[in-house]
Amino acid sequence: MYVDASTLSPAETYRLLVGSVVPRPIAWVTSGLDVINLAPFSSFAWVSQHPAMLGFTVNRRADRRKDTVVNIEEVGEYVVNIASADMLAALHASSEFLDPAESEAERVGMALAPSRVVRVPRLRDVPVAMECRFHSTTAFSPTGGEFVVGTVVAWHIADDVLTGGRIDTEKVNPLGRLAGPRYTTLGDITELPPVPGG
Amino acid sequence: MYVDASTLSPAETYRLLVGSVVPRPIAWVTSGLDVINLAPFSSFAWVSQHPAMLGFTVNRRADRRKDTVVNIEEVGEYVVNIASADMLAALHASSEFLDPAESEAERVGMALAPSRVVRVPRLRDVPVAMECRFHSTTAFSPTGGEFVVGTVVAWHIADDVLTGGRIDTEKVNPLGRLAGPRYTTLGDITELPPVPGG
Repeated sequence: MYVDASTLSPAETYRLLVGSVVPRPIAWVTSGLDVINLAPFSSFAWVSQHPAMLGFTVNRRADRRKDTVVNIEEVGEYVVNIASADMLAALHASSEFLDPAESEAERVGMALAPSRVVRVPRLRDVPVAMECRFHSTTAFSPTGGEFVVGTVVAWHIADDVLTGGRIDTEKVNPLGRLAGPRYTTLGDITELPPVPGG
Repeated sequence: MYVDASTLSPAETYRLLVGSVVPRPIAWVTSGLDVINLAPFSSFAWVSQHPAMLGFTVNRRADRRKDTVVNIEEVGEYVVNIASADMLAALHASSEFLDPAESEAERVGMALAPSRVVRVPRLRDVPVAMECRFHSTTAFSPTGGEFVVGTVVAWHIADDVLTGGRIDTEKVNPLGRLAGPRYTTLGDITELPPVPGG
């Protein structure tokens, strides 16, 4: 099937994107100071290796910007948490669009813990939490969403996901996001020899 | 384990990043006009939903920039291909750092096909190929790599991965990148009810 992108509606474009860019890691972001907002974002990548800088895309809504991006810009700090597969129900429930005065963290039953460098709390029980300092928000197109970038200033890694001092992916047991309200666990893992210069 | 990011070497930071941001989709990028460069990039996300705009991070090398980013900036066009799991050997081999005069596409045995809108060829046999027009390169930090963004102008979707006109993720059978030279297939898939406003 060939599709000229200029013929697609926003909904059609989105369906192709979420079906093609798979499987996606999930940034489970805590933001805010008084009411702690918690929301998952699956268009998520690093944009710098050192310093470690993370970016994720926040869709625009017709009526207002999402709480996460408002909070991050106001506070200048946030935490990117990584869920393990046994947190799927809470992760998914936290994508519900609540009133800004309601806390998704509380609603979905995830315990918070203080961060060390930033003022925004992290999720206590996740395998990895990355404390971030806000860098910038970029609208690469006027209508397509906002790309939020920040620098990782501190790492919290659960002792039980470490093997020999390194993060052990099977122990993290992360979730990948697919098209629609669908998630995958890790499948068959293959390790190949490193390639020269690769 | 708690780690102050400012105490980490570049290699230590990288190991934490690739272990935490998992599983990652893979942009398998064709670039160039005479010699067709082919390389995988697993820090890959969309940065706008409509128009569909894709971004991926290209690491800097000490001696020179990678061929992919040089080609994309020179030509202004490229293709982001999505591999299926049976292409793993070719995908991994294409990350080898060749002389700019050598074509990874030829070396790893992936057949090319003409694109429709852009001049750079796509991979003929992949489930999804997205023809892209270059938008911008951003260095979010001076040392951490470059983030290449482009707009999808045309989609090629193999007929055998469609179900009812939509991309069927199980039929795409994509690969996710993990830490090190490790890849995962899809695992156990869970579909949850859509959440209000999610």
